[in-house]
Amino acid sequence: MLKKILIANRGEIAVRVIRACQEMGIATVAVYSEIDREAMHTQIADEAVCIGPAKSKDSYLNMQNIISATVLTGAQAIHPGFGFLSENSKFAKMCEECNIKFIGPDPETIDNMGNKSKAREIMIKAGVPVIPGTEGAVKDLEDALFQAKKIGFPVMIKASAGGGGRGIRIVKEESEFKKAFETARSEAEVAFGDDTMYIEKFVEEPKHIEFQILGDDFGNIVYLGERDCSIQRRNQKVLEEAPSPIMTEELRKKMGEAAVKAAKAVNYKNAGTIEFLLDKHGNYYFMEMNTRIQVEHPITEMVTGIDLLKEQINIASGEELTFKQEDIKVTGHAIECRINAENPDRGFMPSPGEIKYLYTPGGLGVRLDSAAYQGYVIPPTYDSMIGKLIVYGRDRKEAISRMRRALGEFIIEGVDTNIDFQYRIINNKAFIEGKYNTGFISKEFNL
Amino acid sequence: MLKKILIANRGEIAVRVIRACQEMGIATVAVYSEIDREAMHTQIADEAVCIGPAKSKDSYLNMQNIISATVLTGAQAIHPGFGFLSENSKFAKMCEECNIKFIGPDPETIDNMGNKSKAREIMIKAGVPVIPGTEGAVKDLEDALFQAKKIGFPVMIKASAGGGGRGIRIVKEESEFKKAFETARSEAEVAFGDDTMYIEKFVEEPKHIEFQILGDDFGNIVYLGERDCSIQRRNQKVLEEAPSPIMTEELRKKMGEAAVKAAKAVNYKNAGTIEFLLDKHGNYYFMEMNTRIQVEHPITEMVTGIDLLKEQINIASGEELTFKQEDIKVTGHAIECRINAENPDRGFMPSPGEIKYLYTPGGLGVRLDSAAYQGYVIPPTYDSMIGKLIVYGRDRKEAISRMRRALGEFIIEGVDTNIDFQYRIINNKAFIEGKYNTGFISKEFNL
Repeated sequence: MLKKILIANRGEIAVRVIRACQEMGIATVAVYSEIDREAMHTQIADEAVCIGPAKSKDSYLNMQNIISATVLTGAQAIHPGFGFLSENSKFAKMCEECNIKFIGPDPETIDNMGNKSKAREIMIKAGVPVIPGTEGAVKDLEDALFQAKKIGFPVMIKASAGGGGRGIRIVKEESEFKKAFETARSEAEVAFGDDTMYIEKFVEEPKHIEFQILGDDFGNIVYLGERDCSIQRRNQKVLEEAPSPIMTEELRKKMGEAAVKAAKAVNYKNAGTIEFLLDKHGNYYFMEMNTRIQVEHPITEMVTGIDLLKEQINIASGEELTFKQEDIKVTGHAIECRINAENPDRGFMPSPGEIKYLYTPGGLGVRLDSAAYQGYVIPPTYDSMIGKLIVYGRDRKEAISRMRRALGEFIIEGVDTNIDFQYRIINNKAFIEGKYNTGFISKEFNL
Repeated sequence: MLKKILIANRGEIAVRVIRACQEMGIATVAVYSEIDREAMHTQIADEAVCIGPAKSKDSYLNMQNIISATVLTGAQAIHPGFGFLSENSKFAKMCEECNIKFIGPDPETIDNMGNKSKAREIMIKAGVPVIPGTEGAVKDLEDALFQAKKIGFPVMIKASAGGGGRGIRIVKEESEFKKAFETARSEAEVAFGDDTMYIEKFVEEPKHIEFQILGDDFGNIVYLGERDCSIQRRNQKVLEEAPSPIMTEELRKKMGEAAVKAAKAVNYKNAGTIEFLLDKHGNYYFMEMNTRIQVEHPITEMVTGIDLLKEQINIASGEELTFKQEDIKVTGHAIECRINAENPDRGFMPSPGEIKYLYTPGGLGVRLDSAAYQGYVIPPTYDSMIGKLIVYGRDRKEAISRMRRALGEFIIEGVDTNIDFQYRIINNKAFIEGKYNTGFISKEFNL
């Protein structure tokens, strides 16, 4: 078992890793930038090493300094958290070369999954469904229509050079195709000086459904149910829940097994997530794999009873998984609200500054993962997440009422937060009915 | 379903009840004494009514004022919490007469269980084991020995007028009996001027094991596993855990069924607890029944997934239990540490005053039930409990390491607390090995 771990991250995920290590009796080394001297992760680790100035590239992305700090403190392993160097195969490789255990998959796996077209190729080969589309550009209208019919309507016509919504058309049926293709193509020609077009399946009312997986060094790979992360603002997740309100036992099994198939295709080790788009007809498509722990991992912990951080460390220590697929049961319901220092009324502009007063919610079924404390000054340098409020209930109704109650208790003074915005989501009729897709926030809040 | 509930209590249990009501969509009325104007329960309830001066007898024990507040605010029911009026049958009766639902059992049940000798009688009749002993005084040495043999050694010889340990002898075997009886009797004669003696079974290395039960208006009564509350200081519980480290499936079933039998004997409705003494041979004896929710109820909630406060309210609303005995599963392990404003180095003297800085632990498996906030002034008037730190883990080992971690994170400045003392318990070898009885604190800490 690993005896000392360096955490190459900051904020709540660094605190989350340190807490897991403390419970396992593993010594911890924090690294911090000059601006993070008073940050919680710096304070609660057994040791802390300054690795450079505030700017990420000089500190939390500074591979040399992080490796040096690891060697200096005698840590055997690095936990990269999420963001920063967590999906950097070069860094994982550097760890390997320095005989430091990188807590995550092999560099090759990170590479394969980090390259979108390579990942798509691997998934097609492994028989995991991907969003159907032309492999490259279409030649002309005739070819385009042929491809569109092969893919099946509805389809999206997209300009290769596209952006900002221009050169894109959604076509519901064949009769509309010719006109849509021609206008999209001329739009692309005018906008980008390039009329190269391709066709992709249009995923109707897509939901973002992702599966947590765990793999060990012995080839065991299991899935731990899904997370519904469809509540997004500009592709940023805002609120997540597990299980998904639209999930059935049958679909979970199908998608979970596809996730395991995807992970097996890259000989996956450690914790990872397979993200799928799920359309309204129950078709699902591989989007990407995140080769690290995720922000929203706690909701999976709540419904499965499995501590994912401890599992990551066990796996990195070379231990075999202590449970099999049939041992994993999804019980109850969990919701996570990301609490950010930002102002929803000003376009969600970050609101750094000092937390002047803090009261955090408590009681049955309430979990707070945060690195905030009263007096802490949130720097403007990094992301605006203050923490994650997670609730667990016997069923979705109880989880929703508990989150409503917990959000109502939360007091943060000194900085603006999105607590009220989360409160509005939790009280939204469509959300309560479980009827939402990735268009939820733009539709319901006009954002 | 009840629509509006008045909470006739203060502190964390009042907050606990209000939280449950909020999650159920039930309006809440707090009552508060003049000194509790800024208390959390006063602030978070939908309405709050001042019921008198600080002294309990003038406010939280002032039945007239509480009933008036209930009528005035149109609350349909009163939740009494624990302590104060929670086991006062006169108050329960008064509620009944005023057409207010008292959330608890009938006044008769409270009466029957509140009277120790009556309760003992009922239990004997129902076939629930009680501590064997002579029904009254023994006549003489011959009678005493006869009774002692009937009860079975070891026994305790006790002076009826006894106190302070005088006139008491523990006798392990028959050969020692005569001498012990005679010295105890003369000691009693000298000390109290009264040599009336009685004999009771000596419970060896007793553990305090209690069973949570729930009963509805339809005669359904279930038990929700046990709590081990053997860690006590002067008969005050300090730390509780569920399940008990020494419990077996078989013994749980036997004791649980005895608890249900006890509850059925008094036609018990709502939440209650049957307290047993368990000796080192696995014999258990009814001690008493608490006819209310208990301080340590959260650990049962953690291992069963059942919200006991919501169940109390459901039952009081006339609903039938939604689960049967076979649906109740004990999963994982929970520990509760009572966090008090007191100074263990000064005989646990209460330490009221302002909480100048507060940081509460968080993360996976950590629950805090408290009415404290930074800036809150703990009054000297009531008990010294600041809150309850509860952890849940997959097994006892994880729960212990989690409690260690959580206690380490807890910061309370401005008042003295027992956090360090709890930390010492959690790190105690005998505790970690699960080998302890009610003598633990006096033995391990010389207290």
